[in-house]
Amino acid sequence: MAARSYDAYREDRVGRANVGDTAPLRAYYADLERMHAGALWTVANKIEPWEPKTESVPVVWRYADLREPVLRSLDLVTPEQAGRRVVFLENPGRTEMSAAVGWLYSGLQVMNPGELASSHRHSASALRFIMEGEGAFTNVDGHRMTLGANDFVLTPNGTWHEHGVADDGTACIWQDGLDIPLMNALEAGFYEVHPDLQQAVTYPVDDMTKAWGNPGLRPAGAAWDKRYSPLFKYEWAPTYEALHRFASVTDGSPFDGIHMDYVNPATGGPVMPTIGASMQMLRPGEHTRAHRQVGSFLYQCAKGHGYSIINGRRYDWRERDIFCVPNWMWHEHVNGSAGDDACLFAFHDLPVMKALGLYREQAFGDNGGYQPLLEQ
Amino acid sequence: MAARSYDAYREDRVGRANVGDTAPLRAYYADLERMHAGALWTVANKIEPWEPKTESVPVVWRYADLREPVLRSLDLVTPEQAGRRVVFLENPGRTEMSAAVGWLYSGLQVMNPGELASSHRHSASALRFIMEGEGAFTNVDGHRMTLGANDFVLTPNGTWHEHGVADDGTACIWQDGLDIPLMNALEAGFYEVHPDLQQAVTYPVDDMTKAWGNPGLRPAGAAWDKRYSPLFKYEWAPTYEALHRFASVTDGSPFDGIHMDYVNPATGGPVMPTIGASMQMLRPGEHTRAHRQVGSFLYQCAKGHGYSIINGRRYDWRERDIFCVPNWMWHEHVNGSAGDDACLFAFHDLPVMKALGLYREQAFGDNGGYQPLLEQ
Amino acid sequence: MAARSYDAYREDRVGRANVGDTAPLRAYYADLERMHAGALWTVANKIEPWEPKTESVPVVWRYADLREPVLRSLDLVTPEQAGRRVVFLENPGRTEMSAAVGWLYSGLQVMNPGELASSHRHSASALRFIMEGEGAFTNVDGHRMTLGANDFVLTPNGTWHEHGVADDGTACIWQDGLDIPLMNALEAGFYEVHPDLQQAVTYPVDDMTKAWGNPGLRPAGAAWDKRYSPLFKYEWAPTYEALHRFASVTDGSPFDGIHMDYVNPATGGPVMPTIGASMQMLRPGEHTRAHRQVGSFLYQCAKGHGYSIINGRRYDWRERDIFCVPNWMWHEHVNGSAGDDACLFAFHDLPVMKALGLYREQAFGDNGGYQPLLEQ
Amino acid sequence: MAARSYDAYREDRVGRANVGDTAPLRAYYADLERMHAGALWTVANKIEPWEPKTESVPVVWRYADLREPVLRSLDLVTPEQAGRRVVFLENPGRTEMSAAVGWLYSGLQVMNPGELASSHRHSASALRFIMEGEGAFTNVDGHRMTLGANDFVLTPNGTWHEHGVADDGTACIWQDGLDIPLMNALEAGFYEVHPDLQQAVTYPVDDMTKAWGNPGLRPAGAAWDKRYSPLFKYEWAPTYEALHRFASVTDGSPFDGIHMDYVNPATGGPVMPTIGASMQMLRPGEHTRAHRQVGSFLYQCAKGHGYSIINGRRYDWRERDIFCVPNWMWHEHVNGSAGDDACLFAFHDLPVMKALGLYREQAFGDNGGYQPLLEQ
Repeated sequence: MAARSYDAYREDRVGRANVGDTAPLRAYYADLERMHAGALWTVANKIEPWEPKTESVPVVWRYADLREPVLRSLDLVTPEQAGRRVVFLENPGRTEMSAAVGWLYSGLQVMNPGELASSHRHSASALRFIMEGEGAFTNVDGHRMTLGANDFVLTPNGTWHEHGVADDGTACIWQDGLDIPLMNALEAGFYEVHPDLQQAVTYPVDDMTKAWGNPGLRPAGAAWDKRYSPLFKYEWAPTYEALHRFASVTDGSPFDGIHMDYVNPATGGPVMPTIGASMQMLRPGEHTRAHRQVGSFLYQCAKGHGYSIINGRRYDWRERDIFCVPNWMWHEHVNGSAGDDACLFAFHDLPVMKALGLYREQAFGDNGGYQPLLEQ
Repeated sequence: MAARSYDAYREDRVGRANVGDTAPLRAYYADLERMHAGALWTVANKIEPWEPKTESVPVVWRYADLREPVLRSLDLVTPEQAGRRVVFLENPGRTEMSAAVGWLYSGLQVMNPGELASSHRHSASALRFIMEGEGAFTNVDGHRMTLGANDFVLTPNGTWHEHGVADDGTACIWQDGLDIPLMNALEAGFYEVHPDLQQAVTYPVDDMTKAWGNPGLRPAGAAWDKRYSPLFKYEWAPTYEALHRFASVTDGSPFDGIHMDYVNPATGGPVMPTIGASMQMLRPGEHTRAHRQVGSFLYQCAKGHGYSIINGRRYDWRERDIFCVPNWMWHEHVNGSAGDDACLFAFHDLPVMKALGLYREQAFGDNGGYQPLLEQ
Repeated sequence: MAARSYDAYREDRVGRANVGDTAPLRAYYADLERMHAGALWTVANKIEPWEPKTESVPVVWRYADLREPVLRSLDLVTPEQAGRRVVFLENPGRTEMSAAVGWLYSGLQVMNPGELASSHRHSASALRFIMEGEGAFTNVDGHRMTLGANDFVLTPNGTWHEHGVADDGTACIWQDGLDIPLMNALEAGFYEVHPDLQQAVTYPVDDMTKAWGNPGLRPAGAAWDKRYSPLFKYEWAPTYEALHRFASVTDGSPFDGIHMDYVNPATGGPVMPTIGASMQMLRPGEHTRAHRQVGSFLYQCAKGHGYSIINGRRYDWRERDIFCVPNWMWHEHVNGSAGDDACLFAFHDLPVMKALGLYREQAFGDNGGYQPLLEQ
Repeated sequence: MAARSYDAYREDRVGRANVGDTAPLRAYYADLERMHAGALWTVANKIEPWEPKTESVPVVWRYADLREPVLRSLDLVTPEQAGRRVVFLENPGRTEMSAAVGWLYSGLQVMNPGELASSHRHSASALRFIMEGEGAFTNVDGHRMTLGANDFVLTPNGTWHEHGVADDGTACIWQDGLDIPLMNALEAGFYEVHPDLQQAVTYPVDDMTKAWGNPGLRPAGAAWDKRYSPLFKYEWAPTYEALHRFASVTDGSPFDGIHMDYVNPATGGPVMPTIGASMQMLRPGEHTRAHRQVGSFLYQCAKGHGYSIINGRRYDWRERDIFCVPNWMWHEHVNGSAGDDACLFAFHDLPVMKALGLYREQAFGDNGGYQPLLEQ
């Protein structure tokens, strides 16, 4: 059996570790290991890379593929058995932590009319983006939000919440987004089931959206000291209208077209302390320039079709498809239609990066800002 | 000639000054005055009152009275002579500082079609609330806002700004609100005329409202480090709609009915660092309870009619009337119609009080929360 | 009797009001006055000055003059009669509001051994700077601070507080600094006498200084959500040592020599929301350059002697003298000794100016930064 | 070969997943895996635990063991080869990420007199705690800090920094603490070698400590907008004195004795955005109560000896020993001496937990707050 190599990460560059294995060093390393220690120079270049190297890989999850198995789960398991019927997205580079990209989890959940999940709360922050169906609702700390396609709803960290579908509705499918992997990585996840299994809805339906979802106005004197947005639901119709209003007065972002962040109206900041979200519109024929960012992104195509180029490879998407852009990968987006706009919903961990002072971004400098396509 | 009295503020109460004039004390006081000093106990009870005593008095300025003289100014002075043609509101208790109430200034400005004022900037924060006319606009730091009745527009401290009316418009009247008296009191007012007299409009018309005036959304990644709102114009139609949306899910404030604050969408805070503003709707027949606040308020009736009871006296108002509620005075509002709602626009200095940690409010505790009317 | 003039503030400059009195205008003005209104152009240039015009004047209050009358008050009034025995400083330009400069109050208070004032609290923020005597103490919300010469102690807005001198002490004199005039101007002043007249001291003596007055350290996990500093007492010895430590590594400020701000250690910000304080050391022979600031300053010479030049006139000071620099006046400081350092304690209203976004400063540009002396 | 089990995480509890493997389900799971997806209920109970389960284990690294191999590295490798001569501490549960506990790295670095490392900067935040030797120094962005035993020095994220020992010094050993594992986990680590290999020292030696390390004072008007402390070095002597001053007025924390946080004097917050640090003193004979916290801790005994009980097992330590307390493990500390105090330096990731809203702590409720010892 060959001896373990300790010099796998050598670099011949000033200021970097460059120590070859020798017999005395091997003996030394063995001594250190016995006392739960090691020689930094054997791992320094590994643990201090020149720039981030993500473990995640780009993936497109096609709704055409996933929809049938998601619906099949309705027959395979009951909500009581499964807790929730969810098909989660598993990035090939992140199978160990059940992550879709980076430290973000995503799944497609389905419920039948008349079903109501049990209420729980957890350290993880969660959001829903509605994909299809009629009659879905979410309850959060006594507030009920009714949900339609492309609505975006929050179930923030620490809130009691559950989902359901009205008796007269249809089977509903939505995307769940959470930071469960991050909570596990930080060893900070707590979980509770509601003592009564269901919470009471004690406020008028959709009250938070009607109170907080108004342009430039907030309830006078309303105190809000939570670190997440009181605007639990962001509806699609005013969001799409806002994109068009904004488009009429801006050239847009070179990297993201007409791009708006969902915000906490009480602070102007991100919707939750660990997850941000945005909606962007690519105008007919628009092809944005490439940049890369410290942060992981999960996109869902909310309207239209097109493709993104991620680290030199093309990934096609159409309505309801989900794809990820891993940390520090070059990416640019293309609307596949010359006549219609295309919209991408995204959620990401930029609030984490910014809270810790780690956010960076970089424009692709060569080739007019467009990545050359690699051979596939 | 009688000697000056030094014991006018005596109070016979433990912990308060209670020193009667004597000959030796008078001699002592004279000695102190010669060295620019005094004995605290001669003024202590005056300068440390048990609670605030405002110098302002409640006033209603009726538009039926003011409109004619405001329009008359069009013939009396040119914009070049007058700078601006404005009739300002002068509180009888605050004539020395030309204040409408407390440290707030207010005036009614009028412009003819085709007129354009010269551009200036100043330390004072300013706002406009449009009362009548077609074609008014305001320019702020290169942005142009078109204005209609009941629109609310900011010209914040330090911004180049000017007003005008389009050639095809009509004579326009609006209320100006500023903190000029506060700037003078704080000896902090600077004033500049634009070197070119007019600034260039370099952005699409109404761009700030279209970019920032959307519910729960902001331009992605937009930096905004100014201390005033980037949403320079708050339009009436969505504001009125927001009041009704909010009304459908709230019981409202016992003191103010359906009450919303105009906010800086980048922070959720007040529109400018020294002036806040709000719009409130009194539902048909609504009669709110009384409270008092540390802060001065100027109201304009934007819709309907009714009255307010201020420190026990009734003040009637109808559309376009302006009235003030001085600091720490009890006030309650009554919608005069049993069938229609009534709306009150207000601006105030609560941001100053809150920034300095001085804000308080108190509910009127007796009589079910309603003030007994004093004999007039 | 001559008619009132309405055109006293005319300026012949584009963008400024320039309307001469005429008979029709006088009639118009009379009409407006009857309805509690006026024509803006008659006062615009007065209320919108090009730059601040302070009402305060520079004054030096010499301790050699004031000490005797301060001590005389011990015989003239009892604490019970007077509340407190204080000689307050009255700026000739601010007699109406009993202010020493701008909106700041200052007085010299004296107490005999064994005396203890009654406890009270108020909206005004207060500080003490000890001038002479042994055995003084201040109680603040259950904490007791023992005081020696040049110690600086806070009795913040809203805290129960009282002063006393130990039985075995000597007559003590200190400077009080408060924002009483500002509280009155803002009509925000509330005042209460302690229901028991005295509060209990419930913490170890000097506990806040020992807990919070340590370099780069704070009590672990200690919550402090008040807007004033938990470090109620700043002692002279470590302050003077800090000036010398800082002096060994800095060139100092061109305007203020070795200049340090007293701070709230829980935030790094000013000691109270409306009053800031600093200590500065002028090195032997130092003559600083002139600048001016939006803000009012009250200085006390804590050590040495010298003079300041304020708007072109020289004001000499020596230990214990107090002087003011009014808003937006040029000022420079000179140490009168070639061999010893001189120290100036100051308190000011910069926290108000900064909270409201009004602070500015400007260096004197001509003559190498030094003001020419005006003819006296 | 046995089929993979998908029901390993079943829990028989309402609201939790409880689905046993069946043939149709196995087929379904295989389908999902082919499309990079899975069934949430197969992993839900694993990824949503009831409370955090740390991967780290408690370890004591004894200086008596480590000192010799640390010094031996002086002969084994040159600084040029190794970059830095460091023996790092490897938690048996975190070998993959080279972490000492959680996401924190720690190592013991040694340098000979006259050596000076090359300058670099990185996204990771770093600190040093000096263990032995004379003449060590650290340069940070042009500032030089001289270092003695028990001094604590920062080399914050993004700053150019390097270490050295003066020609007339002795071999020096210190503990390095960094968040390298966290940077790698977040895929946010960037690394640069200084283009000149060495940076210039452009400020007076120890200037930051002399400017910012004063009680209740800061350089007047000094702007500091970095997110780390300007007080780069915290010296031992004033720290130890502060512990005793604080001890004279407090009962101390039931869990940590006399416990002070090192803070950023510009904000009162933690020294760096991702790493906090504290020093605590256990009084003679003190035995604290147990609690647990969301966060990982690395302790170094700076003075005295004693032991800690971590999740029911005893870990002895004496001066210079290093030990860790993993996330959410019960811990209590005992001073082994009845006559002398014992001091523990610690650094931790609480700033991360608090920035993301994840911090919790819990007191051990049984047995008077003391853990029963488990059988070893």
